[in-house]
This record gives sequence, C-alpha cells and structure tokens, in this order.
Amino acid sequence: MSTTRQEKDSIGIVDVPATRYWAAQTQRSLTNFEIGGQQMPIEIIRAFAVLKKAAARTNAALGVLDEAKSNLIGQVADEILAGKLDDEFPLVVWQTGSGTQSNMNVNEVIANRGHVLAGGQLTDEQKALHPNDDVNKSQSSNDTFPTAMHIAAYKMLIENTIPGVEQLRDTLKAKSEAMKDVVKIGRTHFMDATPLTLGQEFSGYVSQLTHGLKAVRNTLDHLSELALGGTAVGTGLNTPEGYAVHVAGEIAELTGLPFRTAENKFEALAAHDAIVEAHGALKTLAVSLMKIGNDVRMLSSGPRSGIGEIIIPANEPGSSIMPGKVNPTQSEALTMAMAQVVGNDVAINVGGMTGHFELNVFKPMMIFNFLMSARLIGDACRSFEKNCAAGIQPNTKKITEHLNNSLMLVTALNTHIGYDKASEIAKKAYKEETTLKAAALALGYLTADEFDAWVRPEKMI
Amino acid sequence: MSTTRQEKDSIGIVDVPATRYWAAQTQRSLTNFEIGGQQMPIEIIRAFAVLKKAAARTNAALGVLDEAKSNLIGQVADEILAGKLDDEFPLVVWQTGSGTQSNMNVNEVIANRGHVLAGGQLTDEQKALHPNDDVNKSQSSNDTFPTAMHIAAYKMLIENTIPGVEQLRDTLKAKSEAMKDVVKIGRTHFMDATPLTLGQEFSGYVSQLTHGLKAVRNTLDHLSELALGGTAVGTGLNTPEGYAVHVAGEIAELTGLPFRTAENKFEALAAHDAIVEAHGALKTLAVSLMKIGNDVRMLSSGPRSGIGEIIIPANEPGSSIMPGKVNPTQSEALTMAMAQVVGNDVAINVGGMTGHFELNVFKPMMIFNFLMSARLIGDACRSFEKNCAAGIQPNTKKITEHLNNSLMLVTALNTHIGYDKASEIAKKAYKEETTLKAAALALGYLTADEFDAWVRPEKMI
Amino acid sequence: MSTTRQEKDSIGIVDVPATRYWAAQTQRSLTNFEIGGQQMPIEIIRAFAVLKKAAARTNAALGVLDEAKSNLIGQVADEILAGKLDDEFPLVVWQTGSGTQSNMNVNEVIANRGHVLAGGQLTDEQKALHPNDDVNKSQSSNDTFPTAMHIAAYKMLIENTIPGVEQLRDTLKAKSEAMKDVVKIGRTHFMDATPLTLGQEFSGYVSQLTHGLKAVRNTLDHLSELALGGTAVGTGLNTPEGYAVHVAGEIAELTGLPFRTAENKFEALAAHDAIVEAHGALKTLAVSLMKIGNDVRMLSSGPRSGIGEIIIPANEPGSSIMPGKVNPTQSEALTMAMAQVVGNDVAINVGGMTGHFELNVFKPMMIFNFLMSARLIGDACRSFEKNCAAGIQPNTKKITEHLNNSLMLVTALNTHIGYDKASEIAKKAYKEETTLKAAALALGYLTADEFDAWVRPEKMI
Amino acid sequence: MSTTRQEKDSIGIVDVPATRYWAAQTQRSLTNFEIGGQQMPIEIIRAFAVLKKAAARTNAALGVLDEAKSNLIGQVADEILAGKLDDEFPLVVWQTGSGTQSNMNVNEVIANRGHVLAGGQLTDEQKALHPNDDVNKSQSSNDTFPTAMHIAAYKMLIENTIPGVEQLRDTLKAKSEAMKDVVKIGRTHFMDATPLTLGQEFSGYVSQLTHGLKAVRNTLDHLSELALGGTAVGTGLNTPEGYAVHVAGEIAELTGLPFRTAENKFEALAAHDAIVEAHGALKTLAVSLMKIGNDVRMLSSGPRSGIGEIIIPANEPGSSIMPGKVNPTQSEALTMAMAQVVGNDVAINVGGMTGHFELNVFKPMMIFNFLMSARLIGDACRSFEKNCAAGIQPNTKKITEHLNNSLMLVTALNTHIGYDKASEIAKKAYKEETTLKAAALALGYLTADEFDAWVRPEKMI
Repeated sequence: MSTTRQEKDSIGIVDVPATRYWAAQTQRSLTNFEIGGQQMPIEIIRAFAVLKKAAARTNAALGVLDEAKSNLIGQVADEILAGKLDDEFPLVVWQTGSGTQSNMNVNEVIANRGHVLAGGQLTDEQKALHPNDDVNKSQSSNDTFPTAMHIAAYKMLIENTIPGVEQLRDTLKAKSEAMKDVVKIGRTHFMDATPLTLGQEFSGYVSQLTHGLKAVRNTLDHLSELALGGTAVGTGLNTPEGYAVHVAGEIAELTGLPFRTAENKFEALAAHDAIVEAHGALKTLAVSLMKIGNDVRMLSSGPRSGIGEIIIPANEPGSSIMPGKVNPTQSEALTMAMAQVVGNDVAINVGGMTGHFELNVFKPMMIFNFLMSARLIGDACRSFEKNCAAGIQPNTKKITEHLNNSLMLVTALNTHIGYDKASEIAKKAYKEETTLKAAALALGYLTADEFDAWVRPEKMI
Repeated sequence: MSTTRQEKDSIGIVDVPATRYWAAQTQRSLTNFEIGGQQMPIEIIRAFAVLKKAAARTNAALGVLDEAKSNLIGQVADEILAGKLDDEFPLVVWQTGSGTQSNMNVNEVIANRGHVLAGGQLTDEQKALHPNDDVNKSQSSNDTFPTAMHIAAYKMLIENTIPGVEQLRDTLKAKSEAMKDVVKIGRTHFMDATPLTLGQEFSGYVSQLTHGLKAVRNTLDHLSELALGGTAVGTGLNTPEGYAVHVAGEIAELTGLPFRTAENKFEALAAHDAIVEAHGALKTLAVSLMKIGNDVRMLSSGPRSGIGEIIIPANEPGSSIMPGKVNPTQSEALTMAMAQVVGNDVAINVGGMTGHFELNVFKPMMIFNFLMSARLIGDACRSFEKNCAAGIQPNTKKITEHLNNSLMLVTALNTHIGYDKASEIAKKAYKEETTLKAAALALGYLTADEFDAWVRPEKMI
Repeated sequence: MSTTRQEKDSIGIVDVPATRYWAAQTQRSLTNFEIGGQQMPIEIIRAFAVLKKAAARTNAALGVLDEAKSNLIGQVADEILAGKLDDEFPLVVWQTGSGTQSNMNVNEVIANRGHVLAGGQLTDEQKALHPNDDVNKSQSSNDTFPTAMHIAAYKMLIENTIPGVEQLRDTLKAKSEAMKDVVKIGRTHFMDATPLTLGQEFSGYVSQLTHGLKAVRNTLDHLSELALGGTAVGTGLNTPEGYAVHVAGEIAELTGLPFRTAENKFEALAAHDAIVEAHGALKTLAVSLMKIGNDVRMLSSGPRSGIGEIIIPANEPGSSIMPGKVNPTQSEALTMAMAQVVGNDVAINVGGMTGHFELNVFKPMMIFNFLMSARLIGDACRSFEKNCAAGIQPNTKKITEHLNNSLMLVTALNTHIGYDKASEIAKKAYKEETTLKAAALALGYLTADEFDAWVRPEKMI
Repeated sequence: MSTTRQEKDSIGIVDVPATRYWAAQTQRSLTNFEIGGQQMPIEIIRAFAVLKKAAARTNAALGVLDEAKSNLIGQVADEILAGKLDDEFPLVVWQTGSGTQSNMNVNEVIANRGHVLAGGQLTDEQKALHPNDDVNKSQSSNDTFPTAMHIAAYKMLIENTIPGVEQLRDTLKAKSEAMKDVVKIGRTHFMDATPLTLGQEFSGYVSQLTHGLKAVRNTLDHLSELALGGTAVGTGLNTPEGYAVHVAGEIAELTGLPFRTAENKFEALAAHDAIVEAHGALKTLAVSLMKIGNDVRMLSSGPRSGIGEIIIPANEPGSSIMPGKVNPTQSEALTMAMAQVVGNDVAINVGGMTGHFELNVFKPMMIFNFLMSARLIGDACRSFEKNCAAGIQPNTKKITEHLNNSLMLVTALNTHIGYDKASEIAKKAYKEETTLKAAALALGYLTADEFDAWVRPEKMI
C-alpha cells in the first residue's frame, strides 16, 4: 500500500502522506519552509477551530451553507478543540506572513476529516466538504488569522497570564501583611537609607503588579475586536448580509468571552496594534517582575556575606561543585523569562510597523511572540509564587543587626537640628566607626535623652 | 572683581560663577559629570518649580514653614515657570540616577534667587532660604524627582502628544470621508488584491490612531499618581500630618490636571512602571504612525514608475543632483522619529527593570526618553498633518488604470463558479496578458453578461 | 513493578521515572520549573557531551580519574552525540540561570547510563560513576555551561548560519552577473531616480551579505575562548595542573574547531560578551536580510499594479479567497524571521548586562536566543535561496516601460545645462504629462540631437 | 533695513534672515520640519566640510572645476571646521531621510559665504559659487550624507570612544594589579561562593573591555568605506573618471584616517550596515559597562549593611534629605548612559532595516543615535574613570570578615572527602550558625589538622 496519496490545488498535484488529513497546500508549506522549527502555536489552531465552527454556523444561519455541512465542520472543530488532531498541524511560524498556510491547513484537515466522518475515503475524488468553498466560506486568511490571533491572545491572558500574576500578587500581599511590623533598613542607590518595614517593601511589589494587571486589562477591549467578516481586504466581499456581527456573536458564545466585530475591518487586517498595545502592557509587567525578581535575589543573598534579610526556600542543590549551596533559582528563571518578554516586545514592534497597505504580513511571528510572552509571564509567576514567594521568611537576626548599625537613622534629626549638623554627625560616626549616638554626643548637638527620643526607627516608618 | 564666589555644602567649599544662582552641589555635578551633553529637559525643571511652590504652600498651611518663606519660594518658582531663569539649570541627564543634583540645582537656585529677591547678596553668609531645610522641606530627591517626572510626562501628553495625534487623525478622517467613493485596487502581501475605496483605506489609519489615543489615555491614570510625600524611602519620614494629600491637591490646582497622591509611595520611588506603561502606549502609536507614514510614502511613489495612487504636496526640491525630484519627506521625518520612539522604549524598559530596593536610579534617563518620544510624536504628527496629509489628493487617473487592470476582481466569481474555476481564469489572464473577461469567456465558465453583472468593483467594496 | 525509583541528592530523596537515566536533580527541576515549554536546545546537550568526554579524557590524562571511568563517560557521550538519548534531557530553558540543572541532567544521565553500560542496574545503591565526583570532575556548572554555549554557538554559525548566508549570497551574485546588462530605473525615497542595472541593484545585496559574513567571522575569535577550567568562580579551584589548556585542546580535537582556553576565566563566567558581540553581528545580518527581503517583495509586486520589475517563483496558491494570487511568501518568512532576530538581540542584551559579580545567571536564556537566531538566519537564507532567489527573473517588459517613462533621466543634463534648467524641464514634463524630450525642446534649452546624445540611460549606469 | 532677503530655489522664492548664509532650501526645511528640537550633530556638519573641500579639490584636479572656485570652497570649509559658522546649520535631525536638506544647508552656506569672501554681497543676483553646480559638483546628497556619516562615526570612535574606554580599561588594569593579593569571597548567583582575589575580579572587567575594544576595532574597516562617487543611485553618474578613488584619498589625507572608496556604492547608499555593525560593537561595550557599573555599585554598597568590599570616592553629598549619605553616582550615570546605548541600538536597527531600493532614508536618525552612543560611551568611561575607578580602594576589614565567615570554603574538601560529605558539613554549619571547621570535626569526616591544611583561601585562588 502506498504511503502517500495525491492531492491537488490550483498549482498542481502534490504527494501527501496517505493517512494525514492535510492536503496539497499544507504539504507545499512543509516543503517550502524548512525554517527554524518553531511550530505554529497550538493555541492558534484551537482558535481557528472555534472560528471555523462559528463561521459554519453563521453561514448556515444566513442561508449560504447547508446545515449538514455546517454540522460536519463543527464536529471536526470539536475534535480539534479536544486535542484529537494535534498532529495534523505541522506547519512552522515562518511561513507566509498572512498565515494563509495555517488557515488552509485547518481548512484541509476539516474538509478531509469531515469527509471521513461522513463515511468517505481520503482518496475519494469528490469530498463532502471543499476546503475553500465550504470550510473557508465567507472568510479569507486575511480576516481569519487575525481573528485567531485575538481569540488566542485574549484567552491566554485571561486563562494564564492574569491568574498567574494575581496568584503571585496575592501571595506577596499576604507576605506584606504578615511582615508589616518587621522594621528594617531601607536602601536607596543600593546604599543604606532610612528605615521602613519589610511589609512596606513588599507592598511596593503588590502595587506594581496591581497596576500591571490593570494595564493588561485596559488592553483587552482592543483585543476583543474581531477581524472576521472583513475577508480579503476589509470590505467583507463574499460575505452574506449581517455576517460579521453574527459570527462575532457565535465566537463570543463559544468562548464565553466578550468578543465583538471590529468597528473598522481595514485596521484589523492591515495592522495589529491591538497585539502591540497588549504586549506593551505585558512588557510593563515584565519590567515589574524583573525588579521584583532582582530584589528577592538580592534580599536573600548570603548566607553569610550578602544582604540576607529574607530567607527563601531551598528547592534543590545549588551547585555542582560547591556543596551545600542554595541559590535564588526561581528569581533566575523569572528574570530570564522577563528578559525574553522584553526582547519579544521589539520583535512585535518590528512586525507591527512593517505592514503595508491592506495587510500586515508579520502575523505568525507577532502572535508567536505574544503567546510566548503571555505564557511565560503566567507560568513564571506561578512557579515563582509556589516555589519561592510563598516560602519567604524574614531573617530577623540580620534585619535587626542592620537596623541597629544604620547611620541613616540620623535623618530623623533634620527637623530638630537641621540638615547640616545631622550630616556632620553621620560623617563623624562613619569615619570613626562609631555609633550615631556617640558621634552626636561628642559633637554636643543634642543630649542623650534627646537622641533616644528622636532617633527611633519604629517611629520613622 | 572676582568671577567666582565660594559656596559650601556638607563636603566642602566650591567655586561657583559669581553671578549664578546655583551653589555648591550644582557646581560639583557640572564638574563630575562631563558626559554627552544632553541637558535635563526644561519640562522637568518647570515641573520642579510647580512642586516646590506646592510644597512650600503645603508646608506653610501645615505650619512647618513661615508664610514669608513660602511666598518667596513661590515667587522664584513663578520666575522659573515664566522661563526667566532657564540658564540657571545647566546639568545633564547623566548625573546621579535619582536626579538629586537637579533637585538640588532647583533648591539652590530658589534659595539664592529668593535671597536676592528678599534684598540680599549672593555672597551673604546667611541666606533668607536654606536649600535643604526650607526649599526642600518635607521632601527628598527620591519623591520630588518622580513627581516632576509624572507632572512633566502628563503635561507633555496632554499638551503636545494627544493634540498632535488628534490633529492628524482628524485630517485623515476628513480625507477618508472626502475620498469615500474613490474605488481603487487593494493590496495584500504588497500584491494586487480585491478593491476597496481610498476612503476605506484611510479609515484604517483613522481607526489605528483612535485606538492609539485611547491606549495613551488609559495610561494617564497611573501617571496621575504622585510620589510626593514619600520622602526618602516611601514612608513619608519628616513630613507633617496630611502633607501628601495636601501637596498633591496643590499640584492639581497649579496645573489644572487631576493629579493625586500615589496610593503606594514605595512603588512610586522604587519603580517607574507608570512611565514604562505610558511609553508602551506611545510605542504603539509609533508603530501605527510608522505604518501610516510608509503607506503614504508608497502610495505616492512615482511619479511615473511607482504606485502613484495619491499625490502629496511638493514642499521642497527633493534632490541636490536630480532636478525636479519631489520626495515624501514628511513620511521620512515621521518614520525616522517613530524609529526613535521604538528605540527609546527599550532604553526605558532597561531603566525600569534595573531599580533596586527602595529606589530606581535610572530616573533622568527614563524621563529624558519619555519626553523625547512624547514630543516627537506630537510634533511629527503636526508636521506631517500640515505639510503632507492635509494636501493629499487622489491620483484618479492612476487609480482607474490600476483598477481596470486588476486580476483580483476575479474573486467576485467565487460565490458563482467556485474558487477553483475562478483561479483558472485569473491564471489564464495573467499568463496570456489578457483581461479577466477574455479569459473567462475563453474558458467558457460564464457568459459576457454574467461577467459584467458579477464583476463590478463598485459592488465589491 | 513500580513506575518510579528513588534517587537521592544532598537535599533528600526524589521519585524518578523508573526507566529514565536522569536522577534527583533533574527531577527536581522538572517539578520546580513548569514554565513556558521551551526546551534546553539539543545543541547545548550535544555540546555538553563533547565537553564531558573531553574533561574525562583530560582528567584521566592528568591522573585524577581512572581510565575505565573516563572511557565509560566517553562512551555515553558518544551515545548522546549520536542522538540515542535525546529523551533523557527534558529540562526547559527557564531553570537556574547558571544552567546547573542541565549540567546535572547530563552528569546524572552519563553516570546512570554508564553504570548500566557497565552492567549495573539503575536501582543499585552504588554506581560505577558519581555524577559530581566523576562526571563533573574538575568542573563546575559555572564553567561547563558557558563552554557548552560557545561550542554550540560556534558550531551553529559554522555549520548552519554562515553556509546558509553564503548560499544565498552566491545565488544573488550569480543573478547580479546574469542581469548585469538589464538597465532599469533607480528608486530613491521610493521615487523614480536615475537608472542603474538590475545587476548593480543586486550587487548591493551581495555586498551587504559579504560584509555581514565578515562581521560574523570577526566575532568567532571571542567565541573560540572556552571557560572550562575556571570551575566555580574562575580561579580553577579543584582542577589539576594544566587542565584548562589540555581540555580545550581535547574539545578542539573532538569538534575540529579552533577552540582554546579563555585567557581570562573571570570574564568567561561572569559575562557573555562573546555571545552579545556575535549576536550583534547576527542582527546586522538580520537588518541586511530584512532590506533584501523587502526589496524583493516590492520589486516583484503586482502583477498588474505594482513595481513588477522582477518575477519570483510561484510556489503555492497565495490566497484562500483570491483565486490565482501569488505572493512573495519567501520574503515574508525571511523578514518575519529577521524581526525575531532583532527582538532576540534585545533579550540577549538584557541578559548580558544583568550579570553580577562572578557569574552571569542569564545563560540558558542567552544561548536559547542565540541559537534560535543563528538557525533562523541560516535556515531562512537557504529557504529563500532555494524557493525564491534562485528563480528570480527580470520582467523586461515592465523594466523597459518604466525606464522609457522616467523623468529622472534629466539628471544627465546637469553637466551640460546646469541643475536649474534641467529642473525646469523635468517639472514641465511632469506637469504636462509629456516626455522629457518634448519639454526640453519646448523650453529651447537644447536641440533634439543634443538630447539624444546626452540622455542615454545605458550611459548613465 | 530689511531683516530678510529673498532666496530662490527650483520651487520658488523664500524669505531668509538677511544676515544668514543659508538660502532657500535650508529655510524651507526650518519651516517644514518643526519637530523635536534635536539638531543635526555638529560632527556631521564638520564631516561635510571635509568632504566638500575634498570634492572641490578633486573636481579641480580632474579638470571639472575652476581652481579658484575650489579654493573658495576650501576656504569656507576651513571656517566651518574651525567652528566659525556653527550657527549657520540650524536644521534638525527629523528632516528628509537622505539628509538632503543638511547637504543643501552646507552647499548654500559655502556658496554664500564663499561669495562674500570673494567680495560679493548676499543680495547679489549672481554669486561666485552655485550651491548645486559648484559646491555639490560630482555629488548627490545620497552619496555625501553617508560619506559624512562614516567620517563622523569613525572620528568619534577614534577620538572619543576608544580612548575613553582605554582610559578606563587601563585604570581598572592598574587596580587589578594593585589588588592582586586581596583574597576575598566570590559570589555566584549573588550568593557566597569560593574565594578569588579582588585583582582577579577586576581582571574580568579589564578582559571585557579589551575584548570590547577589539570588537569596535573590527568594525572600523567597514566604516572606512566611503560612498562618495556613487552620486544619486550608486552608478557615479555625473562624476569625472577617477573621481571616487581620488576624493577618498583627499578625505583620507584631510582626516589622517584610512578612508577608501567603497567597493560597492550601491550598498553604500541603500544600506547602512556599517553603522549597524559598528553600533553592534558599541552595544556590546554598553553591556559590558553596565555589568561593571553594577558590580562597582554593589561592591561599594553600605556603608554598614551592604556588600561593602570596596570604597569609592565621595564626590558630592548624596541625598537632599539623608545627611552624610554617599552614593555610587558615577555608576548611576554610567549605567543610565549604557541603557541609552542599548535603546539607540534598536532605533538604528529599525532604521537600517527599512531602506528601500537604492536609498536608505533613515540616515539622519541613524547617525544621530550612533554619535550619541559613541560619545556617551567615551564620555561616561572618562567620567567614571576619573571620578570613581581611579579612587577605588579595597575595604580590607569587610573583605576579611566576609572571607573568614564563608561556608563555600568547603569546596576545597571535595577532592579529599567527596561532594556529598562536604555538602553535609556546609549544611550543618549553616543550620547551626557555626564554623565549617566545627561542623567538619563534629561530623568526624576529617581532623583539625587536615582541615587547616586543606581549607586555605589563599590556596583556592
């Protein structure tokens, strides 16, 4: 028995693996684009399944497609959503910039699998469904691919990114509250400064993430606009009356998310500013998380010769050569992932800015980076939360030692004796390696009682 | 007469130009940071003037500063705002990362100029105002500089960026409406595609900018939060009760903008996510404008061998060697400026992510880039609007020629004869350099009447 | 039979899949880092195999490891290099930033597989090889991982990137020569300009790639430096005399590449400037390829209403809705991939700049991006060469039409009648939609014979 | 007397300030491009002066320009180089992307100033020099501007960047040698690790900068290629035989730098890969300097609760609120500047990749960023060297304290008792807050004498 069968498209005949549901155009793409190896994200394939089903339903409802065909399309779409056909989508990101080949991959698989479900053979000349005329009916790659981009991006943000960040934010908040009375030295310019509590320090992280989540949510509205119904150039050529609104409604229903038809389809095909904008929020989160990851790394440094004011969980041996070493590995994974997000942002910008006329053709690259970033943020937050943040404890011994030594408590004297005299005290104490109090008394600027009354870390927070 | 006078700070004595209002710390910075030449943006100095006045008023209202001193500070602040003291702020961006030296520059100038206004001499030992104890009262560089950042950024967005983008958006909208009936060929993949109107094409640009403006406005809320009142590390040490809320109110009143005190001062000093987030919206606009600038460049290309579907104003001779050449120079200035914004975004990300503990020390660099970008977008939009967009006209001769030649009108046949046959027609016409109609009739897939009834560009939009 | 067995490390006992060769530390990493899904590149695993074998040989040669153990290690390394153990390396990029867990993964697999090869059972208490004391002997993750980075990066550049770019460069060169007499209109500012040949136009691409290749080769020297022998912090603690030089020699022999021991091991662990520098050359190539890909896209645009001066191969149906459409899909894949490289460059910069003290802990992220970029460039060049560049043909009809119409031929008159008069001629011809000659004669600035003698495109190249 | 005079170009008449040397095209640019405020870098104007003089000389030598005119041009060029006409070049970066307007600005100023030097009046109808036909003879903006870019870039690298980096490198090298016996704790993952010397730590910085300098020098060759002689599109239209080689020789002589004519002029106009490539080396240096700046910041942290192993000079009061505070302000300026360079790199990439056909029109933006970066690196290195690095001293008290406390000295035991037992010792010491020796003896794995013999930090480096 032959291991291939012949499939045909408008260019000619192609040999396709006999048992695969894909057809000529998918096969051509496999041959023509042997690049890199990064597969089209499965989330895009799933989003295509949603929209193919929604389009079929809409086409049937508006009378341009048989109910039977619509059902058959929906049935295969459900199989794709259930993960049963994952191996049928082998194409890479580096294909045509409109994602046409992945759209056709989905069209071909649905047509052929639908034909088989309807009792046919893959080798039949005549099929139950035509990939273009039926499965792709009232659609173009140019409006389906950006629709799939928005569905996949929105879902990833809602299902992974936002809950991941919230999980970390909530744990940091609990930590902030638990440590609200741990007075410690502050650090500005990486140098000793006036005190605050460990809870206050962590409250800054909580505030960063809360703002970041808000920033991400602000971008969801633009992402909720769907291109579908624009077809080839945004005009909606070859769609029945009412199609765009109807199909967006179907997608909203199928996903449970507030998708709606884009007000302007020309933008929706020609530009992906919604992706650029939303990723701008993701990179803001990445910047925040980089800061938080670094602070945790540095606050936990030591164990003997670092800052060492917090203790983080020891999850694994830290070194293949230094016995007993424990490292802030969750901070490392988090900050590496965030560096990636910041790089991805530039790739997305370049893609976003290089669209021409009616179509941006950097679509697969843009959504590849977007989904990578969105998932990295969600996953890394969850990992960091579970394996690090949740176990953070103050190292009270070290904290107290640092606090008691601090020269910057002198700041409390400004309002009593002025900046210049306070400065003299601090400098004297530093130079002579003595305490602030000793230096203050030696200079005669205040009494011991005054010092004790005025320099009280717990009153400085 | 000596050209210098001596000034003192906690480190020692410094020679300062005799007639300058600045003092020791400004002078030290001038000597210690001979880097690059990019001056601290004047918008930051002005924002400092606002906040110094607001702080003085608040300090007076809360009883920790003499009314007279407060008024004196306010008086100098007004002179700064009126641009009378611009030469007194010579420091560069590349100084201490907290902006302390620019804060002290302002403090010193206000103290000394106030002293002179009060009838004193610059050489007097005792001054009417102390730069730290009076002008900087209830403040730290660490909370004033980020406050100045938010004031300057917010104002630039409101006064320059947003109106500039709106001006361009409105003109593009008017053009879109004026050209709503100009049917033309569409282009996807830079290749001929199905038709749309020039008005529709421009409506995509309008939609991009409208979304971009919304994205920028979404970020204003975070920018409206002011760090002032956090002082050194966010705890508000050395501020009187009620100071933070009061001073934000003063700033809101002085600027007429909805500033409010930051809910979390620790974030406000240690991170500048509001700047990162807002610049994320600016880079989204930059990406949109790059697309628009490129499209205009390409649509106007020619005059004889390009796309040539629009005519743009000829503002200047285009070439020093090619006589009579006219170039899309406004597109070029616009897209160059937007490339800069996309680069600035990365500088801002790097600054934002590299804060440590209680203080981010990339403040001057971040706001330098932010203000450059915000101004570039506003200015470039205005220049492009006035000198290019407002004068755009359709080149109807070329448009009609392209439309009539187009093979992609064949798409209208899909719903009548199917994708495969339509494809055959297009390929035949292309190969034989004939018309679609001739090819269609030759293949016998439809009649001449059917062709004329089905293939009507004006119905395809 | 149990599906797991117990493995132990310095932290405790872990359940590991019974048949896997990896042990406790790999398993911990799998559990602790459920992030993203990007696996540690197989090229890094292979590079580790090379260096483990080289280290074992060196250890044996220098008398600190049994010959038998050394051979056993080498035997497993050979299996890894042959791809027989690929499934044994399941860790992701987002792990500890030193790559310790992947180093231990390799150590564990070699130790356990070696034990089995020696006739033992995975469940034996005592093993033939100890992952740390034998396989990792005279090594640390801190010097092995950067060594693996350099081996993998160098090999990818030599085996994939450079030959890929050369293949494209050579084909473009052949095209440049084949089309050296095709005189065509030039375009500057996307506007018609003075003529050149298509061969000259392509020679610019050839020159770009030749320079780019040189830039890449300039960075190989830094990449040829190996960290191995630095162990934990660069001092070479726990290595025998002569180890670093010897082991680099072994690696050079095993790979056939000119690796040598790094002169300064402290840099080699603490910074990855060699990766940053080499990727700086890769992004230069990406910038060049983006330009070339765009030019080809635009030169081939049409078929009826674009620039259309070259014809590119039609490899697949271009549109799911527009029948007969052919698109520059290879340009699209190429330019998308190059956008990725430009984004990756920023991720690498962020990683490179964020090392602290004796160790950079962004290693896995940096090499992940480097290898992605290096492979994308090589693969995309090969794909573009084979499926596009090799088939490019001039569209002489269109070229001639454009050339004959061009107004910029007027430039040839500058040296005869001056810029100002030449300018007048061009403007008149443009305004009146006539030929240059007609305008020139009407203005009386030269005779018809002079015009014919002076304005000759084939003399202007 | 009128404050303006009338000037004419091919588009019409323009009012120009009466006393200015510039003419119509400069004035149009001033009006048409009110964007941003960043002026065309003066280094570009100076480079133009060099090339105008070189072109005039070459034109005279090759017989296409009067000797008298050539001398007049040279005379004005010398005035420009002497800085006497700086106010005559008011244009901004955001103009036409070919820099035509700055080329014309130079042409106009030379023509008019030359006319005045020859005894004429600015209001004379007939001038001694024509801006296009004489000053711009055998030139186009398209080849002059990139030539000016390379001259300015090369000079900045040679005169500022490289010496600045060398100055810092040499000082760090001297420090490395001076501190070669200061044994201290190492840090990996920001955690305590095995020891090294402070001299070794600094030797890593020296090695980074040495490699970075080499990387920069590797890019000079591409920068030494000059576009001049390519004129409008690279063909050299309107240049006399031998012009390109001759004029490059003149420039080499005038600058004393090894400039030569570009082998391929089409690349030289259409792409600026030499700038992209050279800036790739600059960003590598930026990444190195960011690392070094951060390490110095962190190593000097304290004074009481940080790492504190080095002491840096106190150049200014560090805080406006915290008396006596000293901050690592030179590290801050350095790292801010390097963040800028990393951002500039992306702007340059975007510019470099967006050229079309025969001309890249992002020229002014690209060179603006390049010169900013090159100067920032040179200046910041010098500032950091003078005001920080030169004054660095080891804090031997803190260093000794850290070293004696370190648990990672246990690594020395690996080769004696194996990784597992060594690990047990370290963990016990950590848990029980005791010394390694006490823990080792308590576990009975070695004798006190063995411990003293084996664990010797000074032998571990």
